[in-house]
Amino acid sequence: MKARNPEAAPVPENLLAEYRFAEPIYVTSPSLVPLDEYTKLLEKIWEGRRLANNGPFHRELERRLGERLDAEHLSLFCNGTIALLVALQALRIDGGEVITTPFTFPATAHVLYWNNVRPVFCDIDPVSFNMDPDRIEELIGPETKAILPVHVYGTPCDVDRIQAIAERHGLAVVYDAAHAFGVRYRGKSLVTHGDLSVLSFHATKLFTTAEGGALIAKSGAQKQRIDFLKNFGIADEETVIGPGINGKMNELQAAYGLLQLDTVDEEIANRRKVAETYREELAELAGIQMTSDVPDVEHNYAYFPILVDADLYGRTRNELYDCLKAFNVHARKYFYPLCSSYPTYASLPSARPANLPVAGRVADQVLCLPIFGSLGTDAVRTVSAIVRELARTG
Amino acid sequence: MKARNPEAAPVPENLLAEYRFAEPIYVTSPSLVPLDEYTKLLEKIWEGRRLANNGPFHRELERRLGERLDAEHLSLFCNGTIALLVALQALRIDGGEVITTPFTFPATAHVLYWNNVRPVFCDIDPVSFNMDPDRIEELIGPETKAILPVHVYGTPCDVDRIQAIAERHGLAVVYDAAHAFGVRYRGKSLVTHGDLSVLSFHATKLFTTAEGGALIAKSGAQKQRIDFLKNFGIADEETVIGPGINGKMNELQAAYGLLQLDTVDEEIANRRKVAETYREELAELAGIQMTSDVPDVEHNYAYFPILVDADLYGRTRNELYDCLKAFNVHARKYFYPLCSSYPTYASLPSARPANLPVAGRVADQVLCLPIFGSLGTDAVRTVSAIVRELARTG
Repeated sequence: MKARNPEAAPVPENLLAEYRFAEPIYVTSPSLVPLDEYTKLLEKIWEGRRLANNGPFHRELERRLGERLDAEHLSLFCNGTIALLVALQALRIDGGEVITTPFTFPATAHVLYWNNVRPVFCDIDPVSFNMDPDRIEELIGPETKAILPVHVYGTPCDVDRIQAIAERHGLAVVYDAAHAFGVRYRGKSLVTHGDLSVLSFHATKLFTTAEGGALIAKSGAQKQRIDFLKNFGIADEETVIGPGINGKMNELQAAYGLLQLDTVDEEIANRRKVAETYREELAELAGIQMTSDVPDVEHNYAYFPILVDADLYGRTRNELYDCLKAFNVHARKYFYPLCSSYPTYASLPSARPANLPVAGRVADQVLCLPIFGSLGTDAVRTVSAIVRELARTG
Repeated sequence: MKARNPEAAPVPENLLAEYRFAEPIYVTSPSLVPLDEYTKLLEKIWEGRRLANNGPFHRELERRLGERLDAEHLSLFCNGTIALLVALQALRIDGGEVITTPFTFPATAHVLYWNNVRPVFCDIDPVSFNMDPDRIEELIGPETKAILPVHVYGTPCDVDRIQAIAERHGLAVVYDAAHAFGVRYRGKSLVTHGDLSVLSFHATKLFTTAEGGALIAKSGAQKQRIDFLKNFGIADEETVIGPGINGKMNELQAAYGLLQLDTVDEEIANRRKVAETYREELAELAGIQMTSDVPDVEHNYAYFPILVDADLYGRTRNELYDCLKAFNVHARKYFYPLCSSYPTYASLPSARPANLPVAGRVADQVLCLPIFGSLGTDAVRTVSAIVRELARTG
């Protein structure tokens, strides 16, 4: 934790007295399933004595998630990172280049490293924060194998244009849909786009299995290959088809996920209220840019990002972040710094800041405010009031 | 599942009538913690609302496992495979060759693939089933980076000779100690040998967290680096030191592990009784070779391997395996086939069967009989009687 810098961003004592939260407000809080119901499912696990390896709850969760997400060929994973790592392996992408966004969580770039692939970073759109389709084609070269876009904050990428580019150039498309649980676009589940999509069920996600994730394939044959690869490549007791990995989800997590499915729609509805309240409360505030709902999209309200324009707001994003901490409000700089600036990737030609002007500006300005289903409207209004009061526009 | 082959191995009906188990006897069965105690720990997780990311139970389990295993610098993982993958990354072994055993679970070889390392397979000792120290030095070349031995079935490798070879040639030693929970050698915890050791807590292991594992380092600095790498390389909110991965264990599993610690000594004691009963019951049986306790070793009785010599026993290992299935006894061919025979590795020079005669013979003859703490003595005697009766030595 970094200390706030009171010189750069003095917080008036009277504001602290009025608005400071007694208990910390984190950027998110996991949706907990009813413990008594969970215990009943655990009793069944104890009876069956099966804790792992495609047990009954694992199979049921794959089936029910498939129904929920219109994704018949869904494979559960221990986490979304290993799912994304296996996605590339399933497509035999083990070298060359993949075009991706620098404005994402480290896992997106790192799975390329693990598959021996060089990331090529593409700048982002200033409104959606997703990969800018106008900038993709200029990055395609003879070694390009695939495009790996991220539905950042659950906002759909321009799936049609990306698909058209991929088809023209013979590239695979793997969506990092870690944020996009339940999002629908033109009436269709977002995870049905591209060749493969990956979800994360980490504790910070709106649908969670503590850790966890899923890989969504287009065919039963592809799912079967993925299921081999996530189990060390074991096809049967005497056959190992390739250098797979352990990506298996256990039964304790799968049972948790089944109960999450019962409440995830309520969680989304509650988050929607949080987002709407922020939008009302911060609507007129100079220097604070919010996202809007996009036509034809059923959003999941997984995150509530704002952009802080220091010239208009009177404080930088970093100052606002530090000040909020003084009020016990723990916002997060998702995604700062850009992946392209990590030591691992900074020397790549595509990582030059001059190539990524929008991503650079957004990463410097973005702040994700607390949003989760159990965050009450009063708390949202208080956080909003703090953001308003901290403005130094006068 | 393969059908047994009744032509090759006819099973007399009267034997089936006398000895067939009504319920399947699997090679292992997980040790379940008391559900009421587990629920109490879950209540604390629900109160703290922390499901992942180095939560309180995670920290407590690292500390208590460290005490149990004399391993102060222990990091928990989502599974042993990811722990082993990170072990090599922690040592910056990302190319060249590593000498390992072909007589192991696929994960051992596969983590080399994921780190861009070529495995060099070393033959094994016919008694310990571990890498034969007499065969290691001839495999060391200019590209060799490390030795990756496995304490197969929990039997200690010749750690002193391996250490001496490694020191003479400047190689790292990473032990795959997946089977070796709790084993002590000359009064010292086995996982304190080598540069790093990796444990597995999979459901098939005697100490389990459903899925799970641990990586044991030699220093606090090394543990810190490992903890960064298992969390995407994130060193702090604004620093990513390298292309890490998600190797984190969640709180549901860590809580389970804490309760396992209370009973693991009892589990080992009960398994010891199973092993002793097998040894008594099968002592005089021609063509069945068992392992013995090794001086100066506190064993954990994780597995009960036998070697089937078809000439003396009258049936091949495969016939015995198939016959046992007819009795509802599900033994396992750990480890058949050899890793060196998978399509991924079979074309490597070191994978030639002529280089691995002992490993080849053991893989063709080995069968792991059921062993777990709750397997009663009567069941062990019945399994032994079946093995005796199936002998066709007359």
